[in-house]
Amino acid sequence: MDLYDEYRVKPDGKVQLKVIEPREDKPFKDREEAEQLTAENVEAIRQLQYRMFVEGKQSLLIVLQAPDAAGKDGLIRRVLGKMNPQGCRVHSFKKPTELELAHDFLWRVHPCVPARGQVSIFNRSHYEDVLIVRVHDLVPKSVWKERYDLINSFESLLASAGTRILKFYLHISPEEQLERFKERLDLPEKHWKLNAADYHERDRWDDYREAYQAAFEKCSPKHAPWFVIPADRKWYRNAVVSQIVRKTLEEMDPQLPPVTEDLAEIRRLYGMAEGED
Amino acid sequence: MDLYDEYRVKPDGKVQLKVIEPREDKPFKDREEAEQLTAENVEAIRQLQYRMFVEGKQSLLIVLQAPDAAGKDGLIRRVLGKMNPQGCRVHSFKKPTELELAHDFLWRVHPCVPARGQVSIFNRSHYEDVLIVRVHDLVPKSVWKERYDLINSFESLLASAGTRILKFYLHISPEEQLERFKERLDLPEKHWKLNAADYHERDRWDDYREAYQAAFEKCSPKHAPWFVIPADRKWYRNAVVSQIVRKTLEEMDPQLPPVTEDLAEIRRLYGMAEGED
Repeated sequence: MDLYDEYRVKPDGKVQLKVIEPREDKPFKDREEAEQLTAENVEAIRQLQYRMFVEGKQSLLIVLQAPDAAGKDGLIRRVLGKMNPQGCRVHSFKKPTELELAHDFLWRVHPCVPARGQVSIFNRSHYEDVLIVRVHDLVPKSVWKERYDLINSFESLLASAGTRILKFYLHISPEEQLERFKERLDLPEKHWKLNAADYHERDRWDDYREAYQAAFEKCSPKHAPWFVIPADRKWYRNAVVSQIVRKTLEEMDPQLPPVTEDLAEIRRLYGMAEGED
Repeated sequence: MDLYDEYRVKPDGKVQLKVIEPREDKPFKDREEAEQLTAENVEAIRQLQYRMFVEGKQSLLIVLQAPDAAGKDGLIRRVLGKMNPQGCRVHSFKKPTELELAHDFLWRVHPCVPARGQVSIFNRSHYEDVLIVRVHDLVPKSVWKERYDLINSFESLLASAGTRILKFYLHISPEEQLERFKERLDLPEKHWKLNAADYHERDRWDDYREAYQAAFEKCSPKHAPWFVIPADRKWYRNAVVSQIVRKTLEEMDPQLPPVTEDLAEIRRLYGMAEGED
């Protein structure tokens, strides 16, 4: 089962989140098998990232969007954040500041895209400007309607500079979300995360679903695909995302640069006869 | 043995790098004991970092300086980079660009200092401007001489905003450095790191020692101390640095913020009777 193709939103495809099962377990025999795959993938990703870093030609942008408590932080902690931080940065986009609002909606994200050799992880992103902004009417429809094309142009610009883009939506059921909210009540060290506003956002679940679907359908070209990841089970989410990231890096196939220095000269400097080592 | 005090450069203290043993193993019984301590420290650091992140009041700046091959990258990979990347960024300062050189020497580092709740790791830093710059006469003496005071003022500014500063010098012997250079010849995937210029920098070892000593003696106030870490043994370096970072975070003693939300109201929203959970 090719997980990359299984969960990718095809260009111009239709998306019905309602019919996608959030509590998936196939193709894994059990949790243990999935966790084993995740561990192997994390190690492979680290090695591929090292090659990409040294190669210095390509870059990777990972976008995460999800309802509250769907597991973005956990995914970063357990999988994506295991990359070497010398070549990987997480950028969290929160409520825009006044200065940010005084610019176009891509102004604050552009400086955060990855340089050649680097990985950027967006914890929330420019997609908020067609999600929460759309659901809560923060700008007129005439404004947010244009943003899908603007996003596509922006992502094409990045792609043309050697950036691969992967966009993950963590697909959680409202029942599982409520369970996770409740768990926070049992953990005093998570109490700071509690707030009534997150609960009230649940009333807009259907509106968000529509907004997500529109974004996935309009903005999933081959070079910057969306993936809808069943996320009710954390181990499943980790296995699938790590598999997709690994496959992408393998396709990018970063190469160590050719040696430009004169190795014989360096050997001589080090006081080593040719072939002695 | 208090490793923090053992390796800290005392304010107005003298530093003689020549008499500090780079191949240290005390107080550890053996490598295994040191690695066990490192593992415990890494886990403790992660937990403390989480609290600091949530608290959002204090921050930590870690500065790394060292000769080539002394192990900055390894220290980041094995110890410092194990922190959660949502709250930790590595900034590598290389040869300055034209734009950077067109500004004061602190201009490029200032945007990279940690925000409240965050950790920044500087892989090389503003100290290059009193190290390589001094050794290679890149600016007149009258210019670099003033920089020690300017650095102290800058670091005081950061401290006044709640930033703790730890500065580590990885103290490696020239013999160990040459060994590590030679090892790179045996590892094709490290060949990209080889270059004759690094070898020739070894001729300036004594000049660098003087420049390092001057920086340590002039810029090690209590709120922003330098530590000289014996680094010929990687496991020793990892144990000592992790211990110092852990102790510092414990002293900072970050606290989870008080709960401002009405938990009873949230319980009601979740459909849970008081005390039911």
